[in-house]
Amino acid sequence: MTTAASVSHESYDPREFKALTFHDITPRFRDGSDTPRAYLERCLETIASREPEIQAFVALNEAGAREAADASTARWQAGQPLSAIDGLPIGIKDLLETKDMPTQMGCEAYSDHFPKRDNAAVWALRQAGAVIVGKTVTAELGGSHPGPTRNPFDLARTPGGSSSGSAAAVAAHMLPAAIGTQVGGSIIRPAGFCGNIALKPSQGGINRGERQATSMSTHGVHAGCMEDMWQVAIEIAQRAGGDRGYPGLMGPPTPPAAMKPERLIILETEGWAGLDAASKSGFETLLEAIQRAGITLLRRHEHAGVEALEQAIGNAGAVCSAITGWENRWAQRNLVDEHPDGVSERAKANLAKAEAMSPEDYRAALLARETAQLCHAKLASLADAIITLSCPGPAPLWPGDMPGQPLLPRPTGDAIFNYPSSMLFAPCVTMPLMSVGGMPVGVQVMGQPGHDARVTALASWLLGAITPVVVR
Amino acid sequence: MTTAASVSHESYDPREFKALTFHDITPRFRDGSDTPRAYLERCLETIASREPEIQAFVALNEAGAREAADASTARWQAGQPLSAIDGLPIGIKDLLETKDMPTQMGCEAYSDHFPKRDNAAVWALRQAGAVIVGKTVTAELGGSHPGPTRNPFDLARTPGGSSSGSAAAVAAHMLPAAIGTQVGGSIIRPAGFCGNIALKPSQGGINRGERQATSMSTHGVHAGCMEDMWQVAIEIAQRAGGDRGYPGLMGPPTPPAAMKPERLIILETEGWAGLDAASKSGFETLLEAIQRAGITLLRRHEHAGVEALEQAIGNAGAVCSAITGWENRWAQRNLVDEHPDGVSERAKANLAKAEAMSPEDYRAALLARETAQLCHAKLASLADAIITLSCPGPAPLWPGDMPGQPLLPRPTGDAIFNYPSSMLFAPCVTMPLMSVGGMPVGVQVMGQPGHDARVTALASWLLGAITPVVVR
Repeated sequence: MTTAASVSHESYDPREFKALTFHDITPRFRDGSDTPRAYLERCLETIASREPEIQAFVALNEAGAREAADASTARWQAGQPLSAIDGLPIGIKDLLETKDMPTQMGCEAYSDHFPKRDNAAVWALRQAGAVIVGKTVTAELGGSHPGPTRNPFDLARTPGGSSSGSAAAVAAHMLPAAIGTQVGGSIIRPAGFCGNIALKPSQGGINRGERQATSMSTHGVHAGCMEDMWQVAIEIAQRAGGDRGYPGLMGPPTPPAAMKPERLIILETEGWAGLDAASKSGFETLLEAIQRAGITLLRRHEHAGVEALEQAIGNAGAVCSAITGWENRWAQRNLVDEHPDGVSERAKANLAKAEAMSPEDYRAALLARETAQLCHAKLASLADAIITLSCPGPAPLWPGDMPGQPLLPRPTGDAIFNYPSSMLFAPCVTMPLMSVGGMPVGVQVMGQPGHDARVTALASWLLGAITPVVVR
Repeated sequence: MTTAASVSHESYDPREFKALTFHDITPRFRDGSDTPRAYLERCLETIASREPEIQAFVALNEAGAREAADASTARWQAGQPLSAIDGLPIGIKDLLETKDMPTQMGCEAYSDHFPKRDNAAVWALRQAGAVIVGKTVTAELGGSHPGPTRNPFDLARTPGGSSSGSAAAVAAHMLPAAIGTQVGGSIIRPAGFCGNIALKPSQGGINRGERQATSMSTHGVHAGCMEDMWQVAIEIAQRAGGDRGYPGLMGPPTPPAAMKPERLIILETEGWAGLDAASKSGFETLLEAIQRAGITLLRRHEHAGVEALEQAIGNAGAVCSAITGWENRWAQRNLVDEHPDGVSERAKANLAKAEAMSPEDYRAALLARETAQLCHAKLASLADAIITLSCPGPAPLWPGDMPGQPLLPRPTGDAIFNYPSSMLFAPCVTMPLMSVGGMPVGVQVMGQPGHDARVTALASWLLGAITPVVVR
């Protein structure tokens, strides 16, 4: 067994890596052989040791966390925990407001921003007894301009974004779980690059409160295991529900039991054509193992409906970027006007693209999104779910912007495998089922909107039954 | 002809009242016989004379308005107006952010709030050359706690809310148009109480920008005539589109031509049972006139589908209040925590109700809303539109809260005739087709979502062809 604290480049092996987990420790909280405070202290020790090189956090509230952990310890010892995640130390992506820490959104313009408010999801976490440890680094405004966070498995590589700090903190054993957000690929891609388990819920699944950035953003959960992932998500939804206008995440109050899929659709997405050979062959090897386990796999050439969906998501990246750009346009214009030097050139370039759009351009993008959703809905009875990669191979190197050179559009990696689930409003779960060149490469299961629990159950089965593939 | 400046209680007569209009003046801007600056000065004179008693504004930017009007004057004189509303003086409800004036939302907690940002709709208005004159009074946070505004036709009465200042400013000839917002009945009810024309667009019709308060709020327009109402709305939508996820208001670039309806459904709503006898008889008289004009009227007992819709909206008030309460819950809790003395007791009582709700209660309310929407959709081919009152009779007296007495829940009047259009996401236009006891009582036409232009065309016909009913 290797741990994040000891791994270095080329050493991540999904067959051996053991993530930090929480649900399996709580029986010890009950019998007194461990406590939430002691669990927290172990997390804080890891943070102290690894944070200087990984830089997952923009703010830590150790005193507040210790106080919350002590209160949790007392509840467990009295046999009255508030929930199954009472005492769980958690990180909050710095796009979400927290009463006790600033919310800077990775953006210079917000460097003095400290609204003393709790996002609805943060409120729900506190109600459930979770221990809010810190704010995790986000790419600027949830976009593509990266923060300082490094990939725990190779410090020269990105952890992915925009939920960079949440992904890295969980992968580095700093925390058992962290909240991320996704508009394009900001939950699942960094989880894939960092070997985490993660849930991007159905659109509207977890209450974003005031943080209703765009029509396709969601809160989601990074964790070390399926049980913690589900439990965090459902405890929030049970208290704060989903976004306005949505029923919110529904499902069992404890992690859904593993369920073997009968049929899975393989989705290539726009990402397949440009995928590196090693990742492609690794994924094919994984698919063979899945097939050997008795699961039928459906490819695009085998079913017209699958082909229709592939076509409908064939320009998912452009569609998602157009929708998101338009929807953020006025907020970002105001921000740039107020803080001309407080927003990155990368964000300004995206704003310029959005400002060249007309309402008709936006309507066309919405129509493309709705068409793709219809194509997806038509496949509901064809298979249990969709399977595809979570990221285009291992996390890329990114040495930083080069003075005088054009800005790289995707320093935190490409969301090309993630745009489909975002535009389809589809729940998806990423599983650490591959490594390529010693780096994690995630694989995701994606379902119909509302089928979050089902997708979690299918992913649990795959993760338990299929041996991860290692490509050297 | 009477004007608002000369009317007093008991004197409003919808057959004679002449509202302030703009579209009919612009030919004079072109030929130089009038100018936007002179038009503005006339508005400012009326404001100076009537504002002390009416109190429609929380902020005025006269210097900025004069500057904008001068620029508009130059454009018209050069024959290059930016749009048909170039130079139109307009008021902005104080829930919408404006760069040049504070945004206090009728709430003590926001007394120092001056975000120097333009709401997307305000941005679009400036792009179209409109002259932003001032911020109009809103009931606190768009809810039920009233501001100081009085009804121009009887200073002892409410102008309605929450778009109180927008309604009063237009009715009092201070401005030809003003922006309002509606969640329950905050555009159409005050327009009905004040004798204005107003559009509450289909849900998502006009871009609310950051102001995405709830899943059923909309921006809309108060005006003195159908032409100005439509032109303002479409000029905004052509530049800023609709809300995120919505195609936004679509329709002709100029006011739709009047169109005679063949069949109208009469909707009683929850409001009918408690309606005063004078308003009820006035509305019946109006319906007879409509029928005499050759239009078929369908009542609930004549068609099972209409009855089904009546049943489905039978508790619209409770459904809308539950949805809105839940959706505002976290923002308002944070606000109260930050400013315990900065929020009214009335708002705190509503927050307490919302905090007693569970996610399941919210889901039940959403389900009721969706069921009603399905019932409404089923009527699409039965009639051209729905007709009903815009408000439960004339604006009520409200002498202020009585110390030691329980708070009146509806000091700005009851939205009981407006909840249906809000929960159905239906466009509606109110017409000044009645007066009761010398006060205006509006009548609204409501259509299927997306049919904003059609509803405007039908309302234009009714307003032109049907003589308003006066009940003494």
